[in-house]
Amino acid sequence: MDKFFNPTSVVVIGASNSPFNLGATICRALNEFSPYPGKVYAVNRKGEDVHGCPGFTRVTDIPDNVDLAVVIAPSAVVPAFLEQCGEKGIRHVVIESSGFSEAGEQGKALQGKIDGIRSRYGIRVMGPNCLGVLNTENKFCCFYGIQKEDFEIFAGESGEVSYIIQSGGIVVIVLESFRTDVVKAAKIVSIGNKSDIDEADMLEYFENDPKTKVIGMYIENVTKGRKFLETARRVTKPVLVFKVGRTQEGVRAALSHTAGMANNDLIFDAACRQAGIIRVHSVAELHALPKIFTHMPPLKGPRIAVFTNSGAFGGITADLLVQSGLSMARLSPETQERLARTGQIFNVKNPIDLGPALSMQTFLEIFDILLSSGEVDGLLPVPSLWHPMVIDAVMELVKKCHEYGKPAAIYTPNAVAKTISYRSTYGVPLFESPEEAVRALAVSYRHHRACVVKEEAKRMQPHAHGMSAPSRELLEESA
Amino acid sequence: MDKFFNPTSVVVIGASNSPFNLGATICRALNEFSPYPGKVYAVNRKGEDVHGCPGFTRVTDIPDNVDLAVVIAPSAVVPAFLEQCGEKGIRHVVIESSGFSEAGEQGKALQGKIDGIRSRYGIRVMGPNCLGVLNTENKFCCFYGIQKEDFEIFAGESGEVSYIIQSGGIVVIVLESFRTDVVKAAKIVSIGNKSDIDEADMLEYFENDPKTKVIGMYIENVTKGRKFLETARRVTKPVLVFKVGRTQEGVRAALSHTAGMANNDLIFDAACRQAGIIRVHSVAELHALPKIFTHMPPLKGPRIAVFTNSGAFGGITADLLVQSGLSMARLSPETQERLARTGQIFNVKNPIDLGPALSMQTFLEIFDILLSSGEVDGLLPVPSLWHPMVIDAVMELVKKCHEYGKPAAIYTPNAVAKTISYRSTYGVPLFESPEEAVRALAVSYRHHRACVVKEEAKRMQPHAHGMSAPSRELLEESA
Repeated sequence: MDKFFNPTSVVVIGASNSPFNLGATICRALNEFSPYPGKVYAVNRKGEDVHGCPGFTRVTDIPDNVDLAVVIAPSAVVPAFLEQCGEKGIRHVVIESSGFSEAGEQGKALQGKIDGIRSRYGIRVMGPNCLGVLNTENKFCCFYGIQKEDFEIFAGESGEVSYIIQSGGIVVIVLESFRTDVVKAAKIVSIGNKSDIDEADMLEYFENDPKTKVIGMYIENVTKGRKFLETARRVTKPVLVFKVGRTQEGVRAALSHTAGMANNDLIFDAACRQAGIIRVHSVAELHALPKIFTHMPPLKGPRIAVFTNSGAFGGITADLLVQSGLSMARLSPETQERLARTGQIFNVKNPIDLGPALSMQTFLEIFDILLSSGEVDGLLPVPSLWHPMVIDAVMELVKKCHEYGKPAAIYTPNAVAKTISYRSTYGVPLFESPEEAVRALAVSYRHHRACVVKEEAKRMQPHAHGMSAPSRELLEESA
Repeated sequence: MDKFFNPTSVVVIGASNSPFNLGATICRALNEFSPYPGKVYAVNRKGEDVHGCPGFTRVTDIPDNVDLAVVIAPSAVVPAFLEQCGEKGIRHVVIESSGFSEAGEQGKALQGKIDGIRSRYGIRVMGPNCLGVLNTENKFCCFYGIQKEDFEIFAGESGEVSYIIQSGGIVVIVLESFRTDVVKAAKIVSIGNKSDIDEADMLEYFENDPKTKVIGMYIENVTKGRKFLETARRVTKPVLVFKVGRTQEGVRAALSHTAGMANNDLIFDAACRQAGIIRVHSVAELHALPKIFTHMPPLKGPRIAVFTNSGAFGGITADLLVQSGLSMARLSPETQERLARTGQIFNVKNPIDLGPALSMQTFLEIFDILLSSGEVDGLLPVPSLWHPMVIDAVMELVKKCHEYGKPAAIYTPNAVAKTISYRSTYGVPLFESPEEAVRALAVSYRHHRACVVKEEAKRMQPHAHGMSAPSRELLEESA
């Protein structure tokens, strides 16, 4: 599987110099935008070079060894090219062309054809009908249409979140969002119609990938329910899944897009709960929530302390915390007394009302009192950024969280454009709304509890990965 | 009530030249930042001028007539100043000072004192413990701490959304958000502890205010349940309400902030439904949703057509529409045939898959086919902005919507920072997520239905504004 992310040589089949040719955008990206060090070849009717990549008319004409083929030719000619890949000894192929099982009977027949060829040669296929693969570590990216500015997002350092995404449009939003966030992508795959490699294969790969700390998934259907659940149960990294098809209309719409079978959404929900993976409710959560895992210690208990100098957010966050299954930490008289001794706090009961103007010293004291108290598992700070000192205090808080091993989901009461600008400028893990901050704490806690359960199960039955009876039933239904 | 928004002369009581004096920020704003044409006086211990506003030691020393007093002195001296206002003949007073019924027994006693004085003189009081009043038409604003950059937000034209907001922190977020939105504020009041004027009074005022087209409310408690519901039932403008205190913890937190009584949240929910006002679920919705009312015709039926060139959003929006109580429009074979004849569309069933690259001509044809079909009540377009032409098409769509009297909630599949930048640059009513766009359609439809019911009720019983039995019961409980 690693050849998909770290090929030493690639051929782009269907890349030419015709106007609007999509394959050419891949050659251009790999040869001109990206510092990707591998060799890139092009295959097209005329055998012409494309953006400096040597061109051939047949895959088998390429003189050197080729690790990976990226196919973006019209669907009708894809089987012939796949055959050539087999002959050439290429065992890893990304088919980005559409026009397969998502496109009626004719497309289904074509997909059947490529299935036959890949089995015969033992080729692993990503796609068809997908956007391709991105590895931010070696800057290898075969997304068609990718622009120079996109490479700037992952030009510097490589991130820790890997994505399995069934649709190209969602990849674009995730990449755009990371431009202004503290969290960055490690690897992204768009799996499309999943004729061979599916979400379970990729989940397994990312679980074992040392660069990946968090896994995000956007899926429109689950091809093999049992395989997915069995894999998910073994995964210990946090997995965030957004799945469409919560309603019959959503299922219908998704079917016309990436051609899967309809799944019962309730079964999927139950499977996620059982496997300890986290279902998220929007595309935005897929890129907004991972930073609670990459930038903060885990939340190991439900008791949250809120502190704010915008009184309204005391009530707003209390509502949200309770509704999300967390709780407002009860502070003991001793802790309240310690807070009161700072002399600058309006209300020392949780939610703590900081009053309008706190010194840096008082901020630091509050952090220590709360994080060391034993009455608080995590923090939800809502400080107004009325003075540059407050951002310094927030940065100190991030350090203290790691010191005490307890997380903070920080929200500053600003319009989202301002929050994004603060986050970019200062590199602090700010959430964009109180809803998002609370949700981050909730998913951190849920993942922690799932890990505890998985550890426990392993300790009790070191060799079994058996399923309980109810889950078997669920899976028979979804099979 | 109009004197609060259009005073010809104002005195700021407690404004001085001491460092960090909050009253001074009001004098500075009115005399230096704002083109507000009225006279502004200051009252302080030394009788000194503040930012060019003539200073006096007593309110009664001011030689001219004064329409409005803004009090921001320490709570202990507020009763004495209110007495002076009464003597001077001032009948409209904004008390911004805190330290009243939200602050224990002593504060409650002080609030009782000011109640006595205002009754004796017939003074109308806004507050105490509030941020004050903003009128974007004459640029009158007595928010303490307001900065020059905030005046730029409403410097040009005045908007159409008025807000009743119990907490100052929320005012700041709304103003910041409007900096990058197509919708702007008309008037904002922060009502604080509501010792006299409450949300019902303001609701009535904004219903009759010709500048106000949409009303937004942030409240932590309802003081007089029956009065609020009776007023809300008479209101025909769209009202969006965000109320904290959905949980017991939220109620507890809100009580320590603006001192109200606990209300049963279920009763409030039922009251909103009965009065046809819309409960929103976040502060963000308070400023994001009004543009569906100010920039689009009302949604008069539930049937929505989705069109997108990012296939994933077909499924995502179908799920969201169905979950919100709207429906995917069923397109007749004739309409599908007309769409197919454009020759550029991938899938003519709703959700319509536009394929990667449409001409302006095809966009315009699609708008006409859908809006004229009689099978569609509103649109949910999710066009990728891959070319500047698409933004032109979106601007044409806004015009077509008004022509056909049907709304579109437009979302472009981008990260939020990019969406905000497009919206600011081109002035088109873009929503920031598919969730927000669907929610906008849902609230538009809900308001339309409420209006139909209110019209019907009026027609049946022109003189009655009576309540049905169940609602009476609800109100007795909440009283």
